[in-house]
Amino acid sequence: MLEAWPPQPCEDGSCPVARAVAVLDGKWTLLVIRDLLGGPKRFGELRDSLAGISPKTLTDRLRDLESAGVLSRTMYPEIPPRVEYRLTDLGRSLAPVLNALGEFGRSLAIG
Amino acid sequence: MLEAWPPQPCEDGSCPVARAVAVLDGKWTLLVIRDLLGGPKRFGELRDSLAGISPKTLTDRLRDLESAGVLSRTMYPEIPPRVEYRLTDLGRSLAPVLNALGEFGRSLAIG
Repeated sequence: MLEAWPPQPCEDGSCPVARAVAVLDGKWTLLVIRDLLGGPKRFGELRDSLAGISPKTLTDRLRDLESAGVLSRTMYPEIPPRVEYRLTDLGRSLAPVLNALGEFGRSLAIG
Repeated sequence: MLEAWPPQPCEDGSCPVARAVAVLDGKWTLLVIRDLLGGPKRFGELRDSLAGISPKTLTDRLRDLESAGVLSRTMYPEIPPRVEYRLTDLGRSLAPVLNALGEFGRSLAIG
């Protein structure tokens, strides 16, 4: 395994890990994706799940992930309007990343 | 898969994904680990690989990862002293995370 690392040369900005990290950067990004892997969520549900996040930061992260094609935003014309965020196929392809992170996290002492 | 998400309840700070993200946070952290999965490296090798990182930031990230038990730092008493950074067993257990990130990165358009 280690001898075969990295699986592709990482030069000229072509490193796939660097591209992934560029999309997933930011303290809250992976936690937003974790939550949405459980199904579509409204803004308030995400805010309540992500204890400590500011509404502005959550708005920014959701916009970034929408721009990256990781999630979609659907507004339902109700009163008051209802907005739901859900992962795209690209976003759902992140499940193995989150599973691997969870495995690593379980090996860390709870501190 | 999605129905079973999250694999464990995420409450009371016990979420393994959140614990993993707390250790791996920061723009450069995962790229340092990517480089060290290829074998031990000296400070200058990491700095040259991570184009754009400042020496202070690299020092900070290496100290954070050493504190977290992800890497070890060995100084060889030569003149000038040689310092090598290598992943611990815990750090090497991150290989599946990096592999999954690489898979995701390969599915992104090269921008």
